[in-house]
Amino acid sequence: MTDAAVAERKTRRGGRGARRELRGTRETRMLPALKRGLPLMEPMSEEQVRRIDAASMDILEEVGVVFRDPVALEDWKRAGADVRGERVHLDRGLVRELIATIPETFTLHARNPENNLPFGRDHSIFVPMTGAPYLRDLDDVRRGPTLADLADFHKLAHMAPALHSSAHHIVEPMDMKVSHRHLAITLSSIRHSDKTFMGMTTSPRNAEDVMEMAAILFGEEFLETHPVVTGNCNGNSPLVWDETMLGAMRAFCRRNQPVLCSPFVLGGANTPASTAPAVAQLNAEALSALAYTQVIRKGCPAIYGHYLSTVSMKSGAPMAGTPEISLMNFMIGQMARFYRVPWRTSNTLGGAKTFDAQAGYESATTLMAVMMAGANYVWHSAGWNEAGMHCSIAKFVVDAEQCAMAHRMASGIDWSDFDEALAAVRDVGPGGHYLGHPHTQANFQRAFFMPELFDNNAYEHWVAGGSEEITARALKQARAMLRDYEQPKLDEAVDEALQAYVDRRMREIPAVDALNNDH
Amino acid sequence: MTDAAVAERKTRRGGRGARRELRGTRETRMLPALKRGLPLMEPMSEEQVRRIDAASMDILEEVGVVFRDPVALEDWKRAGADVRGERVHLDRGLVRELIATIPETFTLHARNPENNLPFGRDHSIFVPMTGAPYLRDLDDVRRGPTLADLADFHKLAHMAPALHSSAHHIVEPMDMKVSHRHLAITLSSIRHSDKTFMGMTTSPRNAEDVMEMAAILFGEEFLETHPVVTGNCNGNSPLVWDETMLGAMRAFCRRNQPVLCSPFVLGGANTPASTAPAVAQLNAEALSALAYTQVIRKGCPAIYGHYLSTVSMKSGAPMAGTPEISLMNFMIGQMARFYRVPWRTSNTLGGAKTFDAQAGYESATTLMAVMMAGANYVWHSAGWNEAGMHCSIAKFVVDAEQCAMAHRMASGIDWSDFDEALAAVRDVGPGGHYLGHPHTQANFQRAFFMPELFDNNAYEHWVAGGSEEITARALKQARAMLRDYEQPKLDEAVDEALQAYVDRRMREIPAVDALNNDH
Repeated sequence: MTDAAVAERKTRRGGRGARRELRGTRETRMLPALKRGLPLMEPMSEEQVRRIDAASMDILEEVGVVFRDPVALEDWKRAGADVRGERVHLDRGLVRELIATIPETFTLHARNPENNLPFGRDHSIFVPMTGAPYLRDLDDVRRGPTLADLADFHKLAHMAPALHSSAHHIVEPMDMKVSHRHLAITLSSIRHSDKTFMGMTTSPRNAEDVMEMAAILFGEEFLETHPVVTGNCNGNSPLVWDETMLGAMRAFCRRNQPVLCSPFVLGGANTPASTAPAVAQLNAEALSALAYTQVIRKGCPAIYGHYLSTVSMKSGAPMAGTPEISLMNFMIGQMARFYRVPWRTSNTLGGAKTFDAQAGYESATTLMAVMMAGANYVWHSAGWNEAGMHCSIAKFVVDAEQCAMAHRMASGIDWSDFDEALAAVRDVGPGGHYLGHPHTQANFQRAFFMPELFDNNAYEHWVAGGSEEITARALKQARAMLRDYEQPKLDEAVDEALQAYVDRRMREIPAVDALNNDH
Repeated sequence: MTDAAVAERKTRRGGRGARRELRGTRETRMLPALKRGLPLMEPMSEEQVRRIDAASMDILEEVGVVFRDPVALEDWKRAGADVRGERVHLDRGLVRELIATIPETFTLHARNPENNLPFGRDHSIFVPMTGAPYLRDLDDVRRGPTLADLADFHKLAHMAPALHSSAHHIVEPMDMKVSHRHLAITLSSIRHSDKTFMGMTTSPRNAEDVMEMAAILFGEEFLETHPVVTGNCNGNSPLVWDETMLGAMRAFCRRNQPVLCSPFVLGGANTPASTAPAVAQLNAEALSALAYTQVIRKGCPAIYGHYLSTVSMKSGAPMAGTPEISLMNFMIGQMARFYRVPWRTSNTLGGAKTFDAQAGYESATTLMAVMMAGANYVWHSAGWNEAGMHCSIAKFVVDAEQCAMAHRMASGIDWSDFDEALAAVRDVGPGGHYLGHPHTQANFQRAFFMPELFDNNAYEHWVAGGSEEITARALKQARAMLRDYEQPKLDEAVDEALQAYVDRRMREIPAVDALNNDH
């Protein structure tokens, strides 16, 4: 359904619903996956796309990729690759043959089928940030997060219309033992939202636990034939994949679940200090992992991923919102489409320490670039600041609204009332005004996006209201959302089975502050 | 010269210059006009462009445009338009014939020829905001501006590499009588910078004063054949042009100076509440003024303009950074190119009351949209906040750096070292690092943009440095810039002649708080 259609459905509801909206009560119904109505920003000619492709294939053939994992090395030998020690040299013919079986599109299933998402090609979904070791809380205090904090983020993700997933460990629940966290995180994602979610890949065994819980939630057989949970596997750029990530990848692929194959780019530190060559290396890395997903299970879904930053040569720190990151996003989009594989990027990244203007510039620059680039899986779409070191509640709700605005923009131009509105131009005539015209009355709610978290009032009005900056306003909204939150229904037997699984596994796994590869 | 060429020139300078840059000393040399190296975002099909064109021409023929100005009405009659009272009905054939003589490109001359700017087609220039009745000063205090404050903004504009103009009344000098302001403003623009500048259009007579001062600066004859100063004329949407603006327009056009023909759109209030129809109306308005410039003087340069906002239907306030503004920018770019006329838009608009994250999101969203839309004259590129009610010094310097980043992005991908950098991938190999590699050493300064005003250090480092948010850091930089400012040389005789002109006119014009249409 397009935005316009959603708006029309709202308008048609009329009565109490319409009045509530006029009062400004929050809409919490999920927007459909974005269906792109704008052209793509494609800065490379076809020849330049082929040049990147050729360079990446040269790297795969001649330099090779290290797979630090005995199982993967055996798999690659069987698949016909030239394996020398840990280094796998991949012939371009083999790579092309393997990636050809990756589905270009699929449906990503949620436990509530109304929240299922078409995935790939001209569809995009927004997924919150994950992995923050700190949060900025409801009082804007920076501190270590708890499982209760994580639950709050899952609730906010559930209520934000433009977020299509509750993700997984948006923040790290520091009050849980490391070895148990993946269980508590997964249960929280599933319970607090009936949107799609992400699966932990912190170890192969943890990934297996996620698969077991997904099987309880969706049924073993359904899981086998339907993508229901995404997992991320980071590469160690340049050109290395490690045992933890590859083992987690196998856990997902064997059950037919989509993995994001994500080279982790700190441009200039682990790539050449140049945009196009950095993309060529990243592309080689992504291709090697995408190809491996098809060695594990031919035809299983997989996603071309990456994490992108450029590194300040003054301080060595990763930067966000820089021109080269935008350019790389445009280029990677072209490469993913060249291979007909859906792709993931990162969104609304901030490097600021607080939710100040720096965070705003960085986030909006990234969001606009990502929208132009046409990414399918738009991760880290809410909350990311301090280069991922903290998730800010204030930023989380603002970013979520920004995604709704981007959703509207990238849906494209609505021509449905063109002739009708031109008749209004004739009615109103030179020097007139439109506010009272019937066309305006009928269309004002859906015509122009009105962000709730931006203050556009006059200065005096703003002062009279307490001179609140956006952080204060956003935290107020977050509190109100958490107060109004209603947990989505989950079948009682399923809920009990999930709890039983988590309880059993927590008994089995020693409660230690280390990952549990062996349990 | 491309960015890469500028960077290379810097690198070649070596020695003291290079060391100074490594210490992070500010670069103040002006960047060349942006020469676009990215594709354009063009969301309309050719058929849709023609649909907007046809709708606009229908409006011009059937509804007509009000010219509240006896001279213009006489001009239009002579030009063959159907004039009924104040309403001018413009035949599409006449409009097309008139706008056909507007130059698609020209050179905009600065008093320092090194700062001349190629204008139109795939070139863009960044011009600071203007017209703010308040400023946020070097202590972030909101107050009424003085002529000394305006001088500070002219100095900052002069020193910011990505700003191509000192503009005119960036802030309103409230310590000057209204009737004298245009003289003091123009003198300040000219003296404090040798970049291009803007001419006041607050009345026809004021515009004549600007022309006289431009003639003193450049020579009467030079002026006649070279664009040296731009003037803006706002429309009163819907479909009205008033005497003040039209008189000022004539002052500029008669001297062959380019006028920005800018409908002033508050979407939903003075246009239909719908994106495409609002563009159709705006397009009709812009065409009517563009056509009139050619009635005044055939072949004189003119610029398709607009000011764009959408209006919140909750509060009536203008909004910035909304999805529909981005879409309208993309569409207007297509229309201007359809007519082969250079075009102007507005940049980095904020509606926030302080330089908080809202301002950052709004500004970066607008900047990215404008870069994708391919505007030639990118006005309001630094300082605009509170819907134009104040110019913020902190935001001014941050916006200017953002423009430099956008300049880099829109210049496109540099392929010059592609093969060389791929050799580095082979050298470094899997698991290696690039920081010590000769390619990195040779390229790190120009490879990835390093914003000075974004803090990307670790949290602990930032705390140790005083936990400064971007506003504090930016104000520190602004103070340092003003301390280091050096006034660009101006021929003494010219300076004296300008001063004499201003002195004489100030004696002639009564010092009153009203505009001086009669002197």
